[in-house]
Amino acid sequence: MRGRFITLEGGEGAGKSTQARLLESALVAAGHRVVRTREPGGAAGAEAIRGVLLGQGPWDAVAECMLHFAARREHVVRTIRPALEAGAWVISDRFADSTMAYQVFGQGVSRGVFDGLAAVALEGLTPDLTLVLDIGPGEGLARAAARGETNRYEALDADFHERVRAGFRAIAAAEPARCAVVDATAAPEGVAAEILRLVRARLGA
Amino acid sequence: MRGRFITLEGGEGAGKSTQARLLESALVAAGHRVVRTREPGGAAGAEAIRGVLLGQGPWDAVAECMLHFAARREHVVRTIRPALEAGAWVISDRFADSTMAYQVFGQGVSRGVFDGLAAVALEGLTPDLTLVLDIGPGEGLARAAARGETNRYEALDADFHERVRAGFRAIAAAEPARCAVVDATAAPEGVAAEILRLVRARLGA
Repeated sequence: MRGRFITLEGGEGAGKSTQARLLESALVAAGHRVVRTREPGGAAGAEAIRGVLLGQGPWDAVAECMLHFAARREHVVRTIRPALEAGAWVISDRFADSTMAYQVFGQGVSRGVFDGLAAVALEGLTPDLTLVLDIGPGEGLARAAARGETNRYEALDADFHERVRAGFRAIAAAEPARCAVVDATAAPEGVAAEILRLVRARLGA
Repeated sequence: MRGRFITLEGGEGAGKSTQARLLESALVAAGHRVVRTREPGGAAGAEAIRGVLLGQGPWDAVAECMLHFAARREHVVRTIRPALEAGAWVISDRFADSTMAYQVFGQGVSRGVFDGLAAVALEGLTPDLTLVLDIGPGEGLARAAARGETNRYEALDADFHERVRAGFRAIAAAEPARCAVVDATAAPEGVAAEILRLVRARLGA
């Protein structure tokens, strides 16, 4: 039986990595085989692209979008599809919605460019459930800074991060059957409980 | 006045780099400002992608196609368009036809994928003249080996290189106003003379 594909999305400091680990533990405890992965990355070539993406730049926004989808293609072909076909549940810390939020809503790449690249790279693969961890950019960036995490995106202006947040919310509103918005300002245990509740309700884990 | 955009294409060992240098010298001697560049690469981010493309792999063929076009986008935006707009003549050692020959004809990526990526990355930019340096794969690979050059493509089988050669010839046959096939088996000076004749005839250099 094919596994299920769950993605965690959201801005900087929303707690996606922590929640991915907690969800993995809960699903393993429930008897599932789980592959926890991340983007950009999740396969050898995709991790190499991640190094270039984050280490170089600034990129032309369309080129950046193409790099994300090149990495995503490797991730899908090498890691996600084989795991799903082998019956594992896949939890990915970011997926295509991040490119929509950051590059389309945040950086102004056209939706047509995004759709064309998604069609080429994904060949119809869609998450079974996407959890959008929602937090105000100010609070999220402060959390990320407290963890000593900095990246190129965190250095961008407040308007950019507001557009990214609005983008994630718009994606969730447009696809309510696939997506759920989770309040990410609560304590990690509370967020984890809400995520597990959603996974059970939507996917019958 | 906008400059002209000339690309040199062909398989391994066809002499593209040598001919690009010789053509640059001839055009500079004729009073043109020339930017000589190459693919994958030709801009800082594109060279970083080149390192990943050639250093990693094997890639999924679609992912490889996307990486080439991501690098090409940076090359076009940072190097080629600004040079053309400033009136320089641009000579590029490989461009989009190489992706068509290697990934579409050689590796079986669909033409629809190529066309979609080209539309996104290039926004209509087309070379004014493309010189296809034609040589039998056996002779070309022997030349490349004699120079101590090896790469991932050179290690592929003879059928692959025959498909690439046939691809370049098909491109030239389909777009005769843009392309010319040059016999690359002659001595470098003879090939250079034929290239300069074509550039003068087609572009009035």
